[in-house]
Amino acid sequence: MAKELKDLTKRSENYSQWYNDLVVKADLAEQSAVRGCMVIKPYGYAIWEKMQQELDRMFKETGHVNAYFPLLIPKSFLSKEAEHVEGFAKECAVVTHYRLKNAEDGSGVVVDPAAKLEEELIIRPTSETIIWNTYRNWIQSYRDLPILCNQWANVFRWEMRTRMFLRTAEFLWQEGHTAHATKEEAEEEALKMLHVYGDFAENFMAVPVVKGIKTANERFAGALETYTIEAMMQDGKALQSGTSHFLGQNFAKAFDVQFITKENKQEYVWATSWGVSTRLMGALIMTHSDDNGLVLPPKLAPIQVVIVPIYKGEEQLQAINEKVDGIVKKLKALGISVKYDNADNKRPGFKFAEYELKGVPVRLVMGGRDLESNTIEVTRRDTFEKQTRSCDDIDTFVKQLLDDMQQNILQKALDLRTSLTCTVETYDEFKEKIEEGGFILAHWDGTSETEEKIKEETKATIRCIPLEGDKTPGVCMVTGKPSAQRVLFARSY
Amino acid sequence: MAKELKDLTKRSENYSQWYNDLVVKADLAEQSAVRGCMVIKPYGYAIWEKMQQELDRMFKETGHVNAYFPLLIPKSFLSKEAEHVEGFAKECAVVTHYRLKNAEDGSGVVVDPAAKLEEELIIRPTSETIIWNTYRNWIQSYRDLPILCNQWANVFRWEMRTRMFLRTAEFLWQEGHTAHATKEEAEEEALKMLHVYGDFAENFMAVPVVKGIKTANERFAGALETYTIEAMMQDGKALQSGTSHFLGQNFAKAFDVQFITKENKQEYVWATSWGVSTRLMGALIMTHSDDNGLVLPPKLAPIQVVIVPIYKGEEQLQAINEKVDGIVKKLKALGISVKYDNADNKRPGFKFAEYELKGVPVRLVMGGRDLESNTIEVTRRDTFEKQTRSCDDIDTFVKQLLDDMQQNILQKALDLRTSLTCTVETYDEFKEKIEEGGFILAHWDGTSETEEKIKEETKATIRCIPLEGDKTPGVCMVTGKPSAQRVLFARSY
Repeated sequence: MAKELKDLTKRSENYSQWYNDLVVKADLAEQSAVRGCMVIKPYGYAIWEKMQQELDRMFKETGHVNAYFPLLIPKSFLSKEAEHVEGFAKECAVVTHYRLKNAEDGSGVVVDPAAKLEEELIIRPTSETIIWNTYRNWIQSYRDLPILCNQWANVFRWEMRTRMFLRTAEFLWQEGHTAHATKEEAEEEALKMLHVYGDFAENFMAVPVVKGIKTANERFAGALETYTIEAMMQDGKALQSGTSHFLGQNFAKAFDVQFITKENKQEYVWATSWGVSTRLMGALIMTHSDDNGLVLPPKLAPIQVVIVPIYKGEEQLQAINEKVDGIVKKLKALGISVKYDNADNKRPGFKFAEYELKGVPVRLVMGGRDLESNTIEVTRRDTFEKQTRSCDDIDTFVKQLLDDMQQNILQKALDLRTSLTCTVETYDEFKEKIEEGGFILAHWDGTSETEEKIKEETKATIRCIPLEGDKTPGVCMVTGKPSAQRVLFARSY
Repeated sequence: MAKELKDLTKRSENYSQWYNDLVVKADLAEQSAVRGCMVIKPYGYAIWEKMQQELDRMFKETGHVNAYFPLLIPKSFLSKEAEHVEGFAKECAVVTHYRLKNAEDGSGVVVDPAAKLEEELIIRPTSETIIWNTYRNWIQSYRDLPILCNQWANVFRWEMRTRMFLRTAEFLWQEGHTAHATKEEAEEEALKMLHVYGDFAENFMAVPVVKGIKTANERFAGALETYTIEAMMQDGKALQSGTSHFLGQNFAKAFDVQFITKENKQEYVWATSWGVSTRLMGALIMTHSDDNGLVLPPKLAPIQVVIVPIYKGEEQLQAINEKVDGIVKKLKALGISVKYDNADNKRPGFKFAEYELKGVPVRLVMGGRDLESNTIEVTRRDTFEKQTRSCDDIDTFVKQLLDDMQQNILQKALDLRTSLTCTVETYDEFKEKIEEGGFILAHWDGTSETEEKIKEETKATIRCIPLEGDKTPGVCMVTGKPSAQRVLFARSY
């Protein structure tokens, strides 16, 4: 029933179009009047809020606190860290004036030329510069360390090609910025947060990820080491889903942030930064959803269970309402979010299609016969499996079902990744396999030249040098030079 | 002990300086490198997060959902609503370019003149325009109404004179934007949210407020009616703490948002908007705090209870640690947030002063004698009252104490307001009383001319036409013309 929503493109026809359709039709987001900026609609935002909630809890459990730093950054700050400015100055929104005035011809408002700023301000593309300029005043001695701050904020990068959630000019994210007394502690922090991201992706989003190190080419501008979690979308492409950077003393030096050590020496502070963004919404959508719409992991679904009545006449509806009322209470008592949709202006089939599109994990349907037999029909969104159950233990049954579904969609994603991951020995084999999509583990000689040659010839990039798995050395598939371990190649978003 | 923090200015000496000192010394916020923009430090942000949490819950309980709209607004949007542009165009940050490039002389980065925007973008000072431009596509029929959206966001207004939390160029806020089928429903919504704000202020912030209607002069740019909550600070000045606007059909007309009614007619949609901001932090600080530092209502205190040991030698500390451990567990089980500070690098007196400065409501101190007698010393922050209690029921005692303190500081603020509120009959009396500070209830003839004359001559403004209280008509204290009811005058922030 209602398995086909005719206006949603099928994945097999056009994966990219399917994604765009789904984002709009499931009421997650839409393009705004401002180029490259999206409106996150209430249903999409509700999913993002659930993500935020869990991440925020995980950050706090690992000792972090939230703070808020200015949206605008003086232009000169960007230039203070040499690599950072190269990475971010090219695509930023520049504030040059602070006032509009009425146009003389009455046509509206124009920029007031008298209100030109002495120094232009940049809308933050990321906040390392303004934060390290602030930390200078917060840090005098080792007693002031570590500083473990996180910020939930909007950032802006003037992207040329945008796609909702995956790459937008403005996006929402969190950015952690930590300051440490030693190199070891900062490195440990960067890795710790990588693992927090990995845990969140797997245990809440049900998105398996490969954790690894970025090559020098793909490093964050200003970092000594960038760690990443890489997820595989259903089309076999990689999506970089979160990064954690060991920044060394680069920003401390750029902003002169020094401290007195226990041994009474003056030293520069060690730094990390780490972030995930609304891009995770893209990862969530593209990992699990199908031709009927969204599939959401129960842990992040704003509505976990929807109940729909099928009835003849007002009297039967009343009886069903009463019966369902008890079920709703029992489900809520178990912490399950549930919606009872007995609106009379939509047919049940229409409702089914709508909630499938929106990825509500469990659908319960009660009809006249169910009412008589004290049963209810249960349909799970991930497999569309259906069964009729007694109402008596429906609450515990649904709770278990939600847990099973959370596991099942993770397993499904893992299975897909396994089936689309291969190991190759030769560059010819690589070129053949990369056309099929998916992840390829291959040996690489560690040079930027070889990495770029592969990218140019195959559009595949090194997603990361995996931290876990096979560490056997070998020889580079392109140059035959020594390789320390296989690295992960893919085409990516 | 430690009743005087010598470097905090006394309220009686310089109230304004006391406020500025306190914001910085209690680690709430500090000025940033960007003119008029502050950094909200972790402790300040933790209080803001508690406010957000409660408000967000209240919004959701009244049927609202969150969404997110773009930071940048096309310049032309501002001009579409005639009054709105007058109110907001004069003080906004204008984005004119989208790229920087390296300066030819190597001195840093400069704006790339080739990257000039065709139409300038404004950093949102408020989001009515971009949201109503979006709502046009969301609303076709009465079935699409009401829309009850809220947004948590940063906004930017180029203020000339700024003060932390009270008036900053960038600030954090929530802005609700609702769309309705009828005038009555929209008016009801605007009033409903005013009451939500009032409840929040009194029941969580312990800040009593006067709810009322703004005069035409003080209305939000584009509103037909602006409702406000007005709080009194300890210096007798008023602080506008939240506003809710009935916008009529102004924005629907400006952005052509029409819908088909049940009767199949085409009509413009009715609107409200409402917001509170980080300004509430200013209200919280200025209402309760004293010469020793912050006083926080227990419901919004990030740390409700601090426990400090006083000990001689490691062995006694160990014994106290064990004893306190049990108390911490019991307090946490009652949902009380508690910090045990047994750090050995600060003396107890220093700790006491620090937690007084930060407004931690309850301090528990355990010394060697307490250990022997199974007692603990309890000090409440609002009155500095001290008593020694048995450890056995300390958890329930503290819980009750926190409730009492919440009530007590509200009552204290109410009493101050009562003592600083008066009724006057003549303009001479008014001029005398206004010099003493406080709220004055007086008759006014309802004209902007009289209102402006009073403002010019006394620096007092009409804070609102109160919704509750004495509604007896009279004659204007200035002109002798008829007055419908007394209105509330004060000097304000």
